[in-house]
Amino acid sequence: MPRKVCVVVTARPSYSRIRTALDAIRAHPDLELQLVVAASALLERYGDAVAVMEEEGFRIDRRVYMVVEGENLTTSAKTTGIGLTELATVFDNLGPDIVVTVADRYETMATAVAASYMNIPLAHVQGGEVTGSIDEKVRHAVTKLSDLHLVSSESARERVLRMGERHEAVHMTGCPSIDLAKEALDAEPRNITELISQYGGVGAEVDLSGGYVVVMQHPVTTEVEQARKHAEETLHAVSKAGKPALWFWPNVDAGSDGTSKAIRIFREQNLLPNVHFYRNFRPLDFLSLLINSRGIIGNSSVAIRECAYLGVPAINIGSRQAGRDRGRNVTDIGYDRDAIRAEIERLFERGDRPRDMIYGDGSAGRNIADVLASAELTIEKMLTY
Amino acid sequence: MPRKVCVVVTARPSYSRIRTALDAIRAHPDLELQLVVAASALLERYGDAVAVMEEEGFRIDRRVYMVVEGENLTTSAKTTGIGLTELATVFDNLGPDIVVTVADRYETMATAVAASYMNIPLAHVQGGEVTGSIDEKVRHAVTKLSDLHLVSSESARERVLRMGERHEAVHMTGCPSIDLAKEALDAEPRNITELISQYGGVGAEVDLSGGYVVVMQHPVTTEVEQARKHAEETLHAVSKAGKPALWFWPNVDAGSDGTSKAIRIFREQNLLPNVHFYRNFRPLDFLSLLINSRGIIGNSSVAIRECAYLGVPAINIGSRQAGRDRGRNVTDIGYDRDAIRAEIERLFERGDRPRDMIYGDGSAGRNIADVLASAELTIEKMLTY
Amino acid sequence: MPRKVCVVVTARPSYSRIRTALDAIRAHPDLELQLVVAASALLERYGDAVAVMEEEGFRIDRRVYMVVEGENLTTSAKTTGIGLTELATVFDNLGPDIVVTVADRYETMATAVAASYMNIPLAHVQGGEVTGSIDEKVRHAVTKLSDLHLVSSESARERVLRMGERHEAVHMTGCPSIDLAKEALDAEPRNITELISQYGGVGAEVDLSGGYVVVMQHPVTTEVEQARKHAEETLHAVSKAGKPALWFWPNVDAGSDGTSKAIRIFREQNLLPNVHFYRNFRPLDFLSLLINSRGIIGNSSVAIRECAYLGVPAINIGSRQAGRDRGRNVTDIGYDRDAIRAEIERLFERGDRPRDMIYGDGSAGRNIADVLASAELTIEKMLTY
Amino acid sequence: MPRKVCVVVTARPSYSRIRTALDAIRAHPDLELQLVVAASALLERYGDAVAVMEEEGFRIDRRVYMVVEGENLTTSAKTTGIGLTELATVFDNLGPDIVVTVADRYETMATAVAASYMNIPLAHVQGGEVTGSIDEKVRHAVTKLSDLHLVSSESARERVLRMGERHEAVHMTGCPSIDLAKEALDAEPRNITELISQYGGVGAEVDLSGGYVVVMQHPVTTEVEQARKHAEETLHAVSKAGKPALWFWPNVDAGSDGTSKAIRIFREQNLLPNVHFYRNFRPLDFLSLLINSRGIIGNSSVAIRECAYLGVPAINIGSRQAGRDRGRNVTDIGYDRDAIRAEIERLFERGDRPRDMIYGDGSAGRNIADVLASAELTIEKMLTY
Repeated sequence: MPRKVCVVVTARPSYSRIRTALDAIRAHPDLELQLVVAASALLERYGDAVAVMEEEGFRIDRRVYMVVEGENLTTSAKTTGIGLTELATVFDNLGPDIVVTVADRYETMATAVAASYMNIPLAHVQGGEVTGSIDEKVRHAVTKLSDLHLVSSESARERVLRMGERHEAVHMTGCPSIDLAKEALDAEPRNITELISQYGGVGAEVDLSGGYVVVMQHPVTTEVEQARKHAEETLHAVSKAGKPALWFWPNVDAGSDGTSKAIRIFREQNLLPNVHFYRNFRPLDFLSLLINSRGIIGNSSVAIRECAYLGVPAINIGSRQAGRDRGRNVTDIGYDRDAIRAEIERLFERGDRPRDMIYGDGSAGRNIADVLASAELTIEKMLTY
Repeated sequence: MPRKVCVVVTARPSYSRIRTALDAIRAHPDLELQLVVAASALLERYGDAVAVMEEEGFRIDRRVYMVVEGENLTTSAKTTGIGLTELATVFDNLGPDIVVTVADRYETMATAVAASYMNIPLAHVQGGEVTGSIDEKVRHAVTKLSDLHLVSSESARERVLRMGERHEAVHMTGCPSIDLAKEALDAEPRNITELISQYGGVGAEVDLSGGYVVVMQHPVTTEVEQARKHAEETLHAVSKAGKPALWFWPNVDAGSDGTSKAIRIFREQNLLPNVHFYRNFRPLDFLSLLINSRGIIGNSSVAIRECAYLGVPAINIGSRQAGRDRGRNVTDIGYDRDAIRAEIERLFERGDRPRDMIYGDGSAGRNIADVLASAELTIEKMLTY
Repeated sequence: MPRKVCVVVTARPSYSRIRTALDAIRAHPDLELQLVVAASALLERYGDAVAVMEEEGFRIDRRVYMVVEGENLTTSAKTTGIGLTELATVFDNLGPDIVVTVADRYETMATAVAASYMNIPLAHVQGGEVTGSIDEKVRHAVTKLSDLHLVSSESARERVLRMGERHEAVHMTGCPSIDLAKEALDAEPRNITELISQYGGVGAEVDLSGGYVVVMQHPVTTEVEQARKHAEETLHAVSKAGKPALWFWPNVDAGSDGTSKAIRIFREQNLLPNVHFYRNFRPLDFLSLLINSRGIIGNSSVAIRECAYLGVPAINIGSRQAGRDRGRNVTDIGYDRDAIRAEIERLFERGDRPRDMIYGDGSAGRNIADVLASAELTIEKMLTY
Repeated sequence: MPRKVCVVVTARPSYSRIRTALDAIRAHPDLELQLVVAASALLERYGDAVAVMEEEGFRIDRRVYMVVEGENLTTSAKTTGIGLTELATVFDNLGPDIVVTVADRYETMATAVAASYMNIPLAHVQGGEVTGSIDEKVRHAVTKLSDLHLVSSESARERVLRMGERHEAVHMTGCPSIDLAKEALDAEPRNITELISQYGGVGAEVDLSGGYVVVMQHPVTTEVEQARKHAEETLHAVSKAGKPALWFWPNVDAGSDGTSKAIRIFREQNLLPNVHFYRNFRPLDFLSLLINSRGIIGNSSVAIRECAYLGVPAINIGSRQAGRDRGRNVTDIGYDRDAIRAEIERLFERGDRPRDMIYGDGSAGRNIADVLASAELTIEKMLTY
């Protein structure tokens, strides 16, 4: 009997991050994939991940709406509570042998608590990293609820062990998002103008022939009040720099209202004649966009992880990625419009594309499936000290 | 303006454990107590803690029913989800400056997630201990969500620090349950026969004049299937030993159905002519009962903590308290009716009452209030390594 | 394509009441049965209906724990809310063409609201009856949410029409519980002593050879405070009458704590040497028990419905069945121990067994399946006046 | 002791509709107002009713976030379930003597079920009307759960009685929204250009000097799939007519995504140079806007109720208001761009402003408070037939 592996996908970026592992689980002779899609992964305004998943041939076993509207901290907590209640029912009905949860979005706690409370071995992908903000708390709390740790880097492995997890439970698999980056890099070159024409979006028509940048800035959940101000600094910088920019809307999170409002006001004042806005691209399309860009700006983890592998220069703004291992592609900077602007201009001069394998070499999906198929499953554990 | 400290009490034993801290918070000039009573603390069949609290003069700010019936692992998860959803509303309405959560019962995760997600500084009482079973996962996960750690022993402090918490956030206050133990020990001697006569209970009339034992055995959540068998071993031992025994029913937990069924069957077969059964005593009454007993049998944490301070001999059965710091009063033993019986008999011969202060010296409540009043409040943290 | 008919069973008595319809739906070539088991139907202490259903060959499509513990009015409301939230997910995943809800237990509102809000045609079995108490409100509210009314009697049909429902939406099918009664009556005679020996139960051994009565008394939800007092009147009467009695515990409902406590106290005072207590019988066994009894006492609807068909004399106590159509088998009486006792004694003298077909002739299950297969499905309706 | 009257407000339009009753309850010597704000009434993108309420001097007793994101039928049901669960806690903590629920939005069922299940007398404002669509089912189901009916018109009273409610429980108070209409009509004339300048909004600058129309079109929940198409017909008509139009975004409801998308696409194609879009106005401002307009277009109940009293011509499109009593101000029309356009043009020629008092004369708020203060409170009821 193959092991039933239940993966809960709660957001578009999580899907991208785990996709090659889903492929490998589905293909593995000793594993059976159970796929639960929940939270913003079901919602059109956050990229309709479920539609993408179905397009890419995945059969969805359960769909769970759980996002409570308000985009504030209270509703983040409530969303997680509803998800926890419902995922318990889902797991009770599906009877998985292992549950997999991905990374550190707030609602992953629903998956982690449900599985661990139900004595289902819990595998956590991307534990052991450090970032600050609420993600930091969530990630390490999930580590303490998990039985199997599928980490993305050597320093992450080290930290998970130092938190008291057992050696045999921690596996350095690399990050599956790097698998996609490898796929994109190995693929035929794309025509970027054609590529973006599929996606509509709103805002100015931009000419990409002289190079362009990609912008992706999320609110920081422990700095919700400043979300709007933080967005404004980047908006000013991008506006002043005047370089062609493709800007991606933020995830649903406490604070995204502030970010969205800042963008809307800039747009209404016509301050962004060089910017086109998008909701979401298919992952490989997005990676091609990065590969062909001058660099990425904002605070997305893509800048830290995929772009390290790809060698795409990144301007990382503020505290959201604090503490994450960085490749040589990253320049850190504060919420300061002038400094950001100067860095944007430097992207158009810079020639190097330094590549680092810190988050894996492109085989993470397969590694994860192999660990899920072969690891001893247990739900008992104690601190190693 | 005093700091508003919101304490969430979810079970009768948690109330006992935190009561002196509640007193001290209420009395502290720089603190304002907000009291939320939830889960089994509202239910008659688990001791009606809310009634006791009102009797003892506490004003209840909010009551939240959340226990989903079934007493299995699925319903533990669902209970936590409902609690999380509702506590978010409660915190949103009460606006506390600090939330306090106690120990490691599964539903404490609801409090911890709600507060941490809402950027309310979270203080955790009794982190850093080790026990095995799901409590172990819950406790350390709550540690990773908490901003302030009010630990009960030096080794607990050490473990919290090793998990990567900051030095200035970890305070060794001792365990407030020891404050009650001190109070009981310092009080006038009680007439035990009179004391128990207030509580009714069911089962045999027992003669306490020649000494008696107290029994308290909970199901182990990661060994739910064996709950009934584990209870049977103790039942056989107590039955065979024939010594007067006062037996307390288990908490609401996955597995308590099994334990209860084992007891019921023994009772119907009249195998327990030496045992009287109780639901719950008021904490000080229960402590007096222990002080006057020959010892305690089972797997309750009372045997490990309060009884260390009191010097009451304890027969600790099975894995539930594995890894907790022990005083010299504890004898560990497996699920083995003959061995348990032999130890029960030894209790009636043993003369020593060794006392150890490992869980505090009786001033924990005051210590906790002082930390809550003076600690710097922050919600940002990162691993120290 | 057969129509997918989703039936939600939330309690042991509802299952008994709908079982022949489930059989007929399953057997119908144009229907596909989807079975959801929820609420107390999953709980051992309310008869473990789900186990019975599986024994009887039904495949359960989804299981939903939803009963919030407390057995008070607040938790009835919360149970319904949780059920509603989760059944929405269930219906979203199962995609039924019709949803069927049964009768008027409080939690049926969860099924009714979920289906009607999701534009799934809702069929209601047993609308249009009158009883008083909260069931009355629930039943008629469900009627107003339903698109298809499968009523049990002519007077029920009349009432549903008067409430403004369309003629073509109301079908007099009879009550499926009568189908079972017919089955039991047509079956080989049973040896009752053997029959009851399978069920254990607690209390006195009773000798059935000289005749016996069956007792079934539920708390009335709008009279929760008096639940205990009401139970006591019956307990006194049964105790004094001294006739062999088989007593069935009440359903989970607000007030059942009061009823249970009254019973427990009587038992502990040894006032019931003529009574044996049971949780639940399999439906056919229970019907055989009634057929062979001198009569039924209490306020169960079984006394009004099945016993009308069977001609079993019934002493109906208090307001719970007020307004329901009665056969000649029923004697109504107040909460009065002496009067109840006199009626019990009369049961042992009475010779007649008057049968009435007011709730159907035993073909309701088939009738229901036929309507579900052939009725025009619509979700739009308006008052007919 | 004054009666504690708990009013649950779940949406901006419900607040407008009930406001004068809130004033009257607050002012009544025998009543104490408890105010619960929930659902979309807490959300900025639906008009932030809670902010308006605080501005207007109301103290909010509890806030309950409950809207599950998705704007589809599944999430409507889930929203209601979460509301029901949480409102039960709220009522348990507030202990009201009466609960008031307003009209027929889907989430009002949460209030109605919670109160009726908890044996709290439930007063329903605006029962007995007919409209078709899911509101129809909700409204009459709430009637069957309610103990006191505060209806807005004589024909509504008639219908509630025919559904089997008792005479003494049904009170024709008029609709409190008419009180506001009276207030607006009696007030000093306003400068409309100044008035709208406070609200920002998006879209074209429009010149109101030659007259303007107001547009308000909601999706019909039983026709969700066509929501977008329905919106498009109106958009085409308004675009072609070319008259200055002030367009208000729809409520949060299943289907509002479709409506919003239709609007967005029209805007991006620059087809609406004569339209300015708004979220929400303060009620009196909105009424002044209507009083000064040529007429209202769409399917809002404002067109049927307030505009009957005010005599503002209304073009009522489609099925949403089917069956509601109409004044002479209303012209009914299908989803047909050409017909709608013709009617818009006719508004600019029409001279009459026919006024009808069918929904009350402007004293409803006071009437409601008087009934709440004096009515006999009961929770028991039965069909009158």
